[in-house]
Amino acid sequence: MNKAKIVIAGAGYGGMNTAVALSKKLGHNEASITLVNKHDYHYQTTWLHEPAAGTMDPDRTRVKISDVLNTNKVNFVQDEVLEIKTDNKKVMLKDGELDYDYLVVSLGAVSETFGIPGVHEHAFTKWTLNGARQVKDHIDAQFANYNNTADPHEGMLTFVVAGAGFTGIEFIGELSERIPELCKKYDVPREKVRLFVVEAAPSALPGFDPELVEYGMNLLESRGVEFKINTPIKEVTASGVIVGEGEEIKSETIVWATGVRGNPVIDQSGFEANRGRIKVEPDLRAPGFDDVFVIGDCALIINEEINRPYPPTAQIAMQMAKTCANNIVTLNKGGSNLESFKPDIKGTVASLGGKEAIGVVGSKKIYGGTANFMKKMIDNRALFILGGPMLTLKKGKFPL
Amino acid sequence: MNKAKIVIAGAGYGGMNTAVALSKKLGHNEASITLVNKHDYHYQTTWLHEPAAGTMDPDRTRVKISDVLNTNKVNFVQDEVLEIKTDNKKVMLKDGELDYDYLVVSLGAVSETFGIPGVHEHAFTKWTLNGARQVKDHIDAQFANYNNTADPHEGMLTFVVAGAGFTGIEFIGELSERIPELCKKYDVPREKVRLFVVEAAPSALPGFDPELVEYGMNLLESRGVEFKINTPIKEVTASGVIVGEGEEIKSETIVWATGVRGNPVIDQSGFEANRGRIKVEPDLRAPGFDDVFVIGDCALIINEEINRPYPPTAQIAMQMAKTCANNIVTLNKGGSNLESFKPDIKGTVASLGGKEAIGVVGSKKIYGGTANFMKKMIDNRALFILGGPMLTLKKGKFPL
Repeated sequence: MNKAKIVIAGAGYGGMNTAVALSKKLGHNEASITLVNKHDYHYQTTWLHEPAAGTMDPDRTRVKISDVLNTNKVNFVQDEVLEIKTDNKKVMLKDGELDYDYLVVSLGAVSETFGIPGVHEHAFTKWTLNGARQVKDHIDAQFANYNNTADPHEGMLTFVVAGAGFTGIEFIGELSERIPELCKKYDVPREKVRLFVVEAAPSALPGFDPELVEYGMNLLESRGVEFKINTPIKEVTASGVIVGEGEEIKSETIVWATGVRGNPVIDQSGFEANRGRIKVEPDLRAPGFDDVFVIGDCALIINEEINRPYPPTAQIAMQMAKTCANNIVTLNKGGSNLESFKPDIKGTVASLGGKEAIGVVGSKKIYGGTANFMKKMIDNRALFILGGPMLTLKKGKFPL
Repeated sequence: MNKAKIVIAGAGYGGMNTAVALSKKLGHNEASITLVNKHDYHYQTTWLHEPAAGTMDPDRTRVKISDVLNTNKVNFVQDEVLEIKTDNKKVMLKDGELDYDYLVVSLGAVSETFGIPGVHEHAFTKWTLNGARQVKDHIDAQFANYNNTADPHEGMLTFVVAGAGFTGIEFIGELSERIPELCKKYDVPREKVRLFVVEAAPSALPGFDPELVEYGMNLLESRGVEFKINTPIKEVTASGVIVGEGEEIKSETIVWATGVRGNPVIDQSGFEANRGRIKVEPDLRAPGFDDVFVIGDCALIINEEINRPYPPTAQIAMQMAKTCANNIVTLNKGGSNLESFKPDIKGTVASLGGKEAIGVVGSKKIYGGTANFMKKMIDNRALFILGGPMLTLKKGKFPL
């Protein structure tokens, strides 16, 4: 018995779907599969704007790993990955180590701060389940404190989102929907609350269709969101953000959403990388490594049409998982004819809170209710692919 | 150049999805793919109860084949398949013939009459797009005629569904929902209309969970549907149906939904078959034929758990298409290690008209709004698999 040892590091969209696919494709005798992840749950990263703003129970976004993985076929190890030692084919964990014959690096991204001072100290930067709960509780606490303070100071109810990309827009969409309810609950006049989105680039949602961006911005402005576009953040302080030419926006709540970079383990392990992302071969292996696949947030692939990297999305991570699993099965059978990965972008929909959304599906622009339903379909589809109809039923977004 | 000729006969769920999958997997130089179908459109057979009852525009259920198939890669031939000559590898058409190296038989089912006299003469038996339009127009005409007849006779507004299986129940669900609207439109008192479902078996929806069956029957009865269970139909006549011990239900509208059998081409071509269905090998080939795959309604596979055949469903046909396409690609590359087909039954949901449905998803029973939404998800998913998000957007069931 000399079964190949397959280790999957990280249980996000890429890692989970690789594990599920491999558990279906490989028999007990063909390989031993191990999934290692910090938590015993997977969560829907693309849903986090909802629990972060308080419009969804955070439990809805997570899935217990043992609920969807066949744990007879996949060993699950709850631990944190610290480093990959490619020389002796080991994954170093906080509390141990794992040997591998094939490794799938599917670790998640972390916030990109661009070296701006004060971000880690004063902003919420963790776009994780834990991070989302923290943001939500902090927002609630700001409201709760407001009428219990002798002299409520400026900035207590000013909420700043740094970055008007996908995450920032989806978060402010939810939060702007929830503000009237928070004001009512905590007896706060609506005009005391200010919502800012600060973006360094010349447009919100860069790369998105301009007509859709305008629709989205108008909608959010009608809910009281103030955009500061073309406005770099110079510094984050305990009392707010310094933007543009030194103007300060007083705020005790800065949510950082200016983009992401690959997992620090990539640099830590000595891979050649660009902001923590490895430019993978067409078969999704790290250049120079026959036995290391990299998928999801840490994989860099180029969109040839515009000669720029694809953004790391759940959609691409899930598609990579499929190719990665197929290629490992081929290698494990002694084959060498590996699949090349080609992303198949079905479309992109950004929710704007409530029943609003904007998006592009194929070549068609969609708005409002149609986009909102499509977004739900996309979210349910991810659950379906991961855990079948039972998971969809349990955690899905049903308009009931 | 000696490219393999692949012929796919029939553009239902099985054939269409095989064609789409092959067009993605095979390059121009690897094979020539031909799809032959009677019409230049595919239709969603599982939706036909809606246009048949008049609750959906029939155009919603059909998809132009050239809209979803890459016709640069798949030749489409609009013609009717009459016979398969396996000896010289030809598909005989009404207006020509096609040579094949690999054949996929994905022809649709036809109604099973069990030899009951008068069915073909006096009942609506065609569960096709054309058939559904005919039923709908006939129902409307019965209402329109009612107040234009000097002496409206018994049975003019009595509608009989033969068979309380899936199709019969879904159809009466739609029709019972529409009756109040028809009565209003044509000034017909509701009590003049009678709706019957006649079933020979001891229960409606045989094989379905009894609790769900009861829920469904109660609901339909509350809309005025009368069930005659355990009641075989002896004969269909110009004036109605003779049931049980000779009782006649007067009716001018008998919709036949007692089940289906495989396509007559199967028997015509001399395959060994059971009611037009070929018991296929695990790799989906017809026994004794290396080059003939049979999928969908004409393929018989056994559910080992209960030692009975799986009913021919869209779900299974679509799954078979995937395996079939993979196996043809393998054979075409000179391989011999074919996949075995394993159905993966995600669940079953029957709509009951309006916002009502019943179903089983995994091991969970669902009712009402949840089941209704799940049904829509299932229907949209079929569109998504076939034609991606654009088709879903165009033809999907959105609760708007």
